[in-house]
Amino acid sequence: MPTAGIAATEGEDGHGKLIRAGFLRQAQSGIFQMLPLGLRVQQKVERLLDKRMQSIGASRLSLSTFSTEELWQKSNRLHKVAPELFRLQDRKNTRLLLSPTHEEEMTALVASTVHSYKDLPVRLYQTTRKYRDEMRPRHGLLRSREFVMNDLYTFDLCQEAAIDTYHHISAVYSAFFADLKLPVLVAEANAGHMGGNYSHEFHLSHSVGSDVVAVCRVCGHAVAYEGAAAAAQQQGDEGQDGQAKGQDGQAKGQDDQAKGQDDQAKCRQCKTGSLRLERGLELAHTFYLGTRYSEPLDLCVPVASGPDSPIHMGCYGIGVSRLIGAVAELKADHRGLHWPRLMAPFEVAMVPSSPQVPPEMLSLYDALAAQGLDVVLDDRDKRFGWKMRDADLAGYPVVVVLGQAWRDDSMCEVQCSSLGINQTVASQALPAFVGKVISSL
Amino acid sequence: MPTAGIAATEGEDGHGKLIRAGFLRQAQSGIFQMLPLGLRVQQKVERLLDKRMQSIGASRLSLSTFSTEELWQKSNRLHKVAPELFRLQDRKNTRLLLSPTHEEEMTALVASTVHSYKDLPVRLYQTTRKYRDEMRPRHGLLRSREFVMNDLYTFDLCQEAAIDTYHHISAVYSAFFADLKLPVLVAEANAGHMGGNYSHEFHLSHSVGSDVVAVCRVCGHAVAYEGAAAAAQQQGDEGQDGQAKGQDGQAKGQDDQAKGQDDQAKCRQCKTGSLRLERGLELAHTFYLGTRYSEPLDLCVPVASGPDSPIHMGCYGIGVSRLIGAVAELKADHRGLHWPRLMAPFEVAMVPSSPQVPPEMLSLYDALAAQGLDVVLDDRDKRFGWKMRDADLAGYPVVVVLGQAWRDDSMCEVQCSSLGINQTVASQALPAFVGKVISSL
Repeated sequence: MPTAGIAATEGEDGHGKLIRAGFLRQAQSGIFQMLPLGLRVQQKVERLLDKRMQSIGASRLSLSTFSTEELWQKSNRLHKVAPELFRLQDRKNTRLLLSPTHEEEMTALVASTVHSYKDLPVRLYQTTRKYRDEMRPRHGLLRSREFVMNDLYTFDLCQEAAIDTYHHISAVYSAFFADLKLPVLVAEANAGHMGGNYSHEFHLSHSVGSDVVAVCRVCGHAVAYEGAAAAAQQQGDEGQDGQAKGQDGQAKGQDDQAKGQDDQAKCRQCKTGSLRLERGLELAHTFYLGTRYSEPLDLCVPVASGPDSPIHMGCYGIGVSRLIGAVAELKADHRGLHWPRLMAPFEVAMVPSSPQVPPEMLSLYDALAAQGLDVVLDDRDKRFGWKMRDADLAGYPVVVVLGQAWRDDSMCEVQCSSLGINQTVASQALPAFVGKVISSL
Repeated sequence: MPTAGIAATEGEDGHGKLIRAGFLRQAQSGIFQMLPLGLRVQQKVERLLDKRMQSIGASRLSLSTFSTEELWQKSNRLHKVAPELFRLQDRKNTRLLLSPTHEEEMTALVASTVHSYKDLPVRLYQTTRKYRDEMRPRHGLLRSREFVMNDLYTFDLCQEAAIDTYHHISAVYSAFFADLKLPVLVAEANAGHMGGNYSHEFHLSHSVGSDVVAVCRVCGHAVAYEGAAAAAQQQGDEGQDGQAKGQDGQAKGQDDQAKGQDDQAKCRQCKTGSLRLERGLELAHTFYLGTRYSEPLDLCVPVASGPDSPIHMGCYGIGVSRLIGAVAELKADHRGLHWPRLMAPFEVAMVPSSPQVPPEMLSLYDALAAQGLDVVLDDRDKRFGWKMRDADLAGYPVVVVLGQAWRDDSMCEVQCSSLGINQTVASQALPAFVGKVISSL
């Protein structure tokens, strides 16, 4: 897929670079087509999440895009989220909706299959598209109307076990963001429409964020700023699944207002520290739901004494497409994007300075691939300068330049902007050298 | 995810076994939730297709679920497929539809990015959900309203190159079905609503199929039986993307009628052979589209002389969820499902006869996994007989039984029903032995 051009636009943001570099295209307001480069990033995030989910014994499934109004009425949530639902009727006039999140369907599914406490705990997740008819889609993947979420649902017999699960999964979420070397603030949050007892938000500290987080200057304890959340809730614009809460303009106002109020406020946790306010971009959200959904949807198991006991649930979401947009914003500079190694569409780009790709160059490619490196060879019929600027724009962690020195003496130039490396290496030493650079990223 | 039960139902079909074995659940008529076992099968098919698509230089992308009525009006297809579209309006009253297929969106996307003959050929594919509001969803995944398709679109400068591409991809499709060891009939077909000049259908010969294929007794040339297709078309029930054409009851009638008519008919190809009629289940469809979409949607490139030239397109679809349903039907017997090795949710199931899983058993599991085998250890708290019947029901190609002989003398029993193997092997020899069995499947 050809990129859209090499000339940078004045004041172009990360989203603009994603478009220009050919990661995605906008089809309609807030609706995007994921092009091959963008899909590679998305699949890398998915696989990384698969590993983390496997480590907690969660099984992956894939629920339908559709849910029914009937089910959302049972959980008493239909009217709360109605303005943002995409709704439709099928040819038999069943009232369907495109799921913005899957608590209802997941609870109903597990209720139809789990009948004994012996089957617990159960941990199920998926990585699928979700839908939200935003009033004002903006910032590309940061607030889109169709988005990709990794959502995990946990089912435990009692509250104590469910809280243990909650802490365990929160730690796994932090580990996932650490894999990507992203500085994430974990903030206490209001459970909002999800119901349930407590909840945390995982924020990337960034000026484009529409949330405000209050961080204690002494103990570091972070709290999602409730003034902003409450105001957003009033407007029916409350996030329920890791999408943005509040509106940007509004959040900015809150920001100033909050500064005035909270400069004097003390930390709830240590009771001594004053609070620093940061703009946050929400990437993930965790909720201990308790029996908020299991009771109305009749997800219970028999226990030794008394009536059947409702199962204690948790739900956990990471915004996959939003994460891609957020990393693009956070790491873009004047030259282009910069991907963490584990999210990069390719780890290594080989850029020949002439249009010919002789067999020795293919052997070199094979040698890098045989090292387990995810490498791409830019054999497009374009000028060398264009290709180099395109590689900078796309943000590959390592670029191997095969120029005159390669043709004359089999010497390659290895560039890694994030480590400040620009070194000439003999081609036989290249695989080992690049492997070492990549593994230190 | 617990299975639904071990007791077989009288006359249960493949779909019934998929439900009972816990591969999927029906959410609503024609709408299914893919459970972990089913999703594993789907992902294996996806990865196999990724390899085949890579071999023809096709890049994977992921278009939105949404398309617009406006675009389908431009291609003049909206009214033809209208009865089967899921339609909706967003909050700004844009008229959207859930795409049943992606020719329009793909053509519009490529028109926005390809501006020179130098960028051609382009080959793009995706594996995504598609939607079709069937009048009568039935046979589970064989005719569902939400389904998974692998769809490939090709863009060539001229007809000759596009026809070459067509033949190349047809061969790749045949190779894909050969990977799965599925006997597939490739039949000449009518291009129908897709427009374009010619087309082939890939059928699995099976009594549950709703199509009829006429096969020459002499040269083997196969033709989709047009009486059935024409009658189905009249009813507005024409398939455009690998979903079933015609209605089953009707196809049966056609069958008898066709037998009368075609017993005398001669093969179009060799002009001598008489025709044998077979019931077919359509798994894939290929179309040479020519300029059917590139002209109305203005996908053209400048050429040396004269006006811009419209690009010649092809489109190709494999019904991924339908394939899963079809293989379940084709291969189920009284004991359960039988997956081709490359589609099996796991290649090897280890079934211990006692509930304990000692460390030596985990080491054995690790040794099998280290061989590159996709293995599962059934450590559920269930009786041995239940687990064995569950393994039969789920259709794992190889089952390793760890019973008394294993506890006493480290001997394992290896079962492979499709090769008729039931052999006792020392545990240290197990990985090599199972590897050999699996590689001959």
